[in-house]
Amino acid sequence: MTTNRYSITEAAALIASGKVTAVRLAEDCLARVAVREEAVHAWAYIDPQQVLADARARDAESPRSPLHGIPVAIKDIIDTDDMPTEYGSPIYAGYRPRADAACVALLRNAGAVIMGKTVTAEFAMSHPGKTCNPLDTAHTPGGSSSGSAAAVADHMAPLALGTQTGGSVLRPAAFCGIVGFKPTFDAINPVGVKPNTKSYDTVGLMGRSVGDVALAFAVMTRSDAAAFALPPIDKPRIGFYRTLSWAKADAATQAALEDAASRLAAAGARVTEVTLPAKFSEFADARNKVGHYETSRALAWERRNFEEQIAVREKLRRADAVTFEQYMAAQKVLDECRRLVDVTFADFDVLLVPSAPGEAPRGLTTTGDATFNQTWTALHTPAVTVPVFKGPAGLPMGAQFVGPRGSDYLTLACAEWGFRALA
Amino acid sequence: MTTNRYSITEAAALIASGKVTAVRLAEDCLARVAVREEAVHAWAYIDPQQVLADARARDAESPRSPLHGIPVAIKDIIDTDDMPTEYGSPIYAGYRPRADAACVALLRNAGAVIMGKTVTAEFAMSHPGKTCNPLDTAHTPGGSSSGSAAAVADHMAPLALGTQTGGSVLRPAAFCGIVGFKPTFDAINPVGVKPNTKSYDTVGLMGRSVGDVALAFAVMTRSDAAAFALPPIDKPRIGFYRTLSWAKADAATQAALEDAASRLAAAGARVTEVTLPAKFSEFADARNKVGHYETSRALAWERRNFEEQIAVREKLRRADAVTFEQYMAAQKVLDECRRLVDVTFADFDVLLVPSAPGEAPRGLTTTGDATFNQTWTALHTPAVTVPVFKGPAGLPMGAQFVGPRGSDYLTLACAEWGFRALA
Repeated sequence: MTTNRYSITEAAALIASGKVTAVRLAEDCLARVAVREEAVHAWAYIDPQQVLADARARDAESPRSPLHGIPVAIKDIIDTDDMPTEYGSPIYAGYRPRADAACVALLRNAGAVIMGKTVTAEFAMSHPGKTCNPLDTAHTPGGSSSGSAAAVADHMAPLALGTQTGGSVLRPAAFCGIVGFKPTFDAINPVGVKPNTKSYDTVGLMGRSVGDVALAFAVMTRSDAAAFALPPIDKPRIGFYRTLSWAKADAATQAALEDAASRLAAAGARVTEVTLPAKFSEFADARNKVGHYETSRALAWERRNFEEQIAVREKLRRADAVTFEQYMAAQKVLDECRRLVDVTFADFDVLLVPSAPGEAPRGLTTTGDATFNQTWTALHTPAVTVPVFKGPAGLPMGAQFVGPRGSDYLTLACAEWGFRALA
Repeated sequence: MTTNRYSITEAAALIASGKVTAVRLAEDCLARVAVREEAVHAWAYIDPQQVLADARARDAESPRSPLHGIPVAIKDIIDTDDMPTEYGSPIYAGYRPRADAACVALLRNAGAVIMGKTVTAEFAMSHPGKTCNPLDTAHTPGGSSSGSAAAVADHMAPLALGTQTGGSVLRPAAFCGIVGFKPTFDAINPVGVKPNTKSYDTVGLMGRSVGDVALAFAVMTRSDAAAFALPPIDKPRIGFYRTLSWAKADAATQAALEDAASRLAAAGARVTEVTLPAKFSEFADARNKVGHYETSRALAWERRNFEEQIAVREKLRRADAVTFEQYMAAQKVLDECRRLVDVTFADFDVLLVPSAPGEAPRGLTTTGDATFNQTWTALHTPAVTVPVFKGPAGLPMGAQFVGPRGSDYLTLACAEWGFRALA
């Protein structure tokens, strides 16, 4: 097995013991890119010499963390001081930020090798980039973290950073058959990530196992990451929540989730069906209003100077209709729903919900529907998708586990428990 | 009277009617800068030719808003695409951002003339810049929006943008004898403002009257700003709140506030003494923990590459001690306190609190104490300081009016009512 297929835990142990070099790992990842990029189009920018130079420098040091020497793909909505950052927009062609995003600087502090920039939908919104689903290139990889999901799924990199404002980490992870993790809001500092909707934008992680993603999250959020292990789980309390969007899930997804609820119970979980309080009937509208108010202003400079180069310009113009009073009222609804979901979580460790309405749609004109993700993004709750189902076209589908705000490690542990029970 | 002393309402009417040109207004402001800048040091960057060219272009157009042709000073923590932006740090010497901050683009859309960049404390934190208090240059102007407050107070510009993470708009406004307004969190989009503490950073406005500040806020937040007027106020319900920091207020401030409470009641307000719920005993510690966790990471790139150039580097190192679990627990305390203060506000239109512990301290080694401001910044509530008191050294002191989240216009109207009653 070439080293690009190793888990981070495996690779880190081999690097720490000197059995594998960071250069070797980088070479194997780059070799995979060389073979596959023409079909997958995961990368907005990658320079093999730059990657190898970084890996050589890491090999010359003692390991700084369990991510030492691990190549990480960075969604091109995230600033890097030594690589172009184009936000999926021609407005920023060739743009080189002055500074790394905080999350990139934290990865460099940990000894990670920044491998390159992955394709993002325009400004992390809905207009797709060039990336194909590596499992079937006639299908979308999902978005907006399209290239990050494809690169990890295709063994070009073991780990990637993505961002999620609606469903931009979980959905592409589910479509590409990998693990996607959207932490609690602001758990990973978003400074240097091009803002879209400030109240929702969340930096997330994509990997090929829950353990890999959890380890990377630990390195980015705690000083004791070297000794890190997920908390043990026994008989997790799982709320099976079909959501207000259940009718948008296709038959295969509905059947898979119903079956999963039974199998999780059979494996020892305490599974209960759950609904959210009546206030949540106001949630979708409030979520949209906050999103529209913030996004339309976040891109004020681009709209003022380069509106004709913005693919979603009409959507932004319509978003201008939300008034200050509507925005403030909508923020109150979201606050109240965040409080109410905390109350619901008193009875559950995690909720089980679909990761997406179905398999990755065919074609590259859409990145798919975020309906099963955007609630949790706006509620600021951690969410993990694990690849445990196959759809009718043979493409992967995910199960999504959602936990209460701040319970990121417990949520990851429950997702790992669920993965083992369902896979 | 030279036009640089006009209120925005006066200047806008004269510009709209063609009686005064934007160039004339800019020239008068620039003339004041030429006379006073050597003593005040308000500006990090100002180019008179650039300002005049902008004003000429505005004179060639029909007025786009009530801010058309009005010069606005921009705190140098806020990005501009045509002027350097140095964040008060040598790390960013000569840095020219690719894009305007959203708030600057919105001002340009409204026809405002961007006059230049004003001195900020390093990264909008505590290390002072070079600005002096224009009312007595031996005293601090306050910070971190030091240059913005000084420029407006000294009639160099009628309006300025500042930012507040602790007390960085209200405190310098109070010290310089002007009106400072920190809106509800995120009311003015913060994209393109160098982040410090994402959960607190708020774009604010500084002017010489409540009406001026309210008009500018209306232009930045609503499409009907041309017909804008503050809501009428009759017998406002005012909660007199001495705060948990009352002992930090000097005798003159305590006496002024006690007297103000009586005079507001005499003028017709329903004034009641108020305290906040017991949960607020946990607030200060939670506020600090969230601030430390976010700030220490927000500057990860600068700390990684240029730590020796950061004046507050030791403070940032100490901030690293806050753990992920402490951060998440502290965010919960803040959420709960935000909810509780909303309950308190059911009985009040605004709270009356000190704007600062006293007059501007002598000397330029500190920007003063934010203790009376930082609670409201972290609670996300709108706050206005109006210059209604004089301290023992003859320098101005402010009264601060704080309203519930989203009630920005009512809070401004109450502050104007209070100003008229007390001034």
